Amino acid sequence: MVNEDVFETVKTKEASLPERTAEQISRLIREKQLTGEDKLPSEFELAELLHVGRGTIREGVKLLVARNVLEIRRGKGTYIAPNPGEIPDPLGFTYYPDQLRLAMDLVEIRGQMEPWVARMAAEHATAEDIQRLRESCSVVEQDILSERDHSENDVLFHVAIAKCTQNLVVPKLIPIITYAVKLFVSLTERRLRMETIVGHRDMLEAISAGDGRRAEQAMAQHIEYNRAMLQDIAGQLKKEDGGGE
Amino acid sequence: MVNEDVFETVKTKEASLPERTAEQISRLIREKQLTGEDKLPSEFELAELLHVGRGTIREGVKLLVARNVLEIRRGKGTYIAPNPGEIPDPLGFTYYPDQLRLAMDLVEIRGQMEPWVARMAAEHATAEDIQRLRESCSVVEQDILSERDHSENDVLFHVAIAKCTQNLVVPKLIPIITYAVKLFVSLTERRLRMETIVGHRDMLEAISAGDGRRAEQAMAQHIEYNRAMLQDIAGQLKKEDGGGE
Repeated sequence: MVNEDVFETVKTKEASLPERTAEQISRLIREKQLTGEDKLPSEFELAELLHVGRGTIREGVKLLVARNVLEIRRGKGTYIAPNPGEIPDPLGFTYYPDQLRLAMDLVEIRGQMEPWVARMAAEHATAEDIQRLRESCSVVEQDILSERDHSENDVLFHVAIAKCTQNLVVPKLIPIITYAVKLFVSLTERRLRMETIVGHRDMLEAISAGDGRRAEQAMAQHIEYNRAMLQDIAGQLKKEDGGGE
Repeated sequence: MVNEDVFETVKTKEASLPERTAEQISRLIREKQLTGEDKLPSEFELAELLHVGRGTIREGVKLLVARNVLEIRRGKGTYIAPNPGEIPDPLGFTYYPDQLRLAMDLVEIRGQMEPWVARMAAEHATAEDIQRLRESCSVVEQDILSERDHSENDVLFHVAIAKCTQNLVVPKLIPIITYAVKLFVSLTERRLRMETIVGHRDMLEAISAGDGRRAEQAMAQHIEYNRAMLQDIAGQLKKEDGGGE
């Protein structure tokens, strides 16, 4: 009962046969608690089990591959994906027409959420977490000092902080709310670079000292700096647009 | 530049031809800012434009349908989906083996996030937002008083609050963090029902009065009540499991 599909109602009412087959395979994966280590039963076995043709199984499998529930490993067969059902851009942000507005709304959420995440991280980090965080911090610094684009590793640093909380979901939310980081790295150029190094180091030290309050403050300041910079850019872009709304 | 695909790096390096075609169609949708009102160009036009066969276009379209970027309208053709790229269960929660742990971690996030959402809602709600919130509140009450499962409409009430914030992303995060609501409604039975009616009314009144502090407190109390109940259930389930960890 706890495993029941709470998203079921969102699906189309008149699902196609491949769609219903995909749902049955998905249910099988959940019931048997299959993971990224596990191979999917063969087309033949699935066809027998679900009373459909192998062509239908193949179509159902394709749907689950498209949704990152399954993955094809070349020469090895079909496996459960490492994080089944997790997809890049799960909220369709890339399709939003007003990316600047999106970025502003995201930084508002970050400003509220991430200081709390930093505090939780300081309170719950293990020695191993801190080691990984330290490495992640250093990778971002190397990017910045070598004048490489650090946006991806920057997001990973924030994910590493989120992992220190021991909460399963927080690390999954960070890539969503930091979506805008990469969009504006080219606009902010180097203005944010030194602040990023100092801000990240502050957070790292506070978390490794187990100082929740300091971690929270350092994160709040870091996001506020980002927010101010973004607002600045937004203002400039609007001016260039000819002062429109 | 602002529309550049920030998730691109997450994709598989050796993408198949249908996968690359799906990406090109997706790019076309973003560049032309096509929306749910718009029909996708014909297979023939796309094949010409992207220099691939119609069979490949068909496979690419299937992938985008599976990801809810496109939708087939029976007898009408292929359209952009209303919220392109948004899928149910975007983080793959249904595949998590420990649903109880997931629920506890989610309620921790809710307790941190939703009081702030309620305050923002009180500060930014329009008259129209409040009207919709009032209706949503009443739908949940009718469910509860008729002893129907109110979990779905309960989530929609929290989404309606989130819409009052005027932040684009907050309403998208609520269905994710309230994922566990439906899972445990059968376990909590009627114990939470009266509390839900009173708690929701409190929030509605605070938001419609523009009282951010009261809205925040009412939400905090509501989530805390849910958290305590969930912890109770978790304790009982563990006991039934034979006192394991």
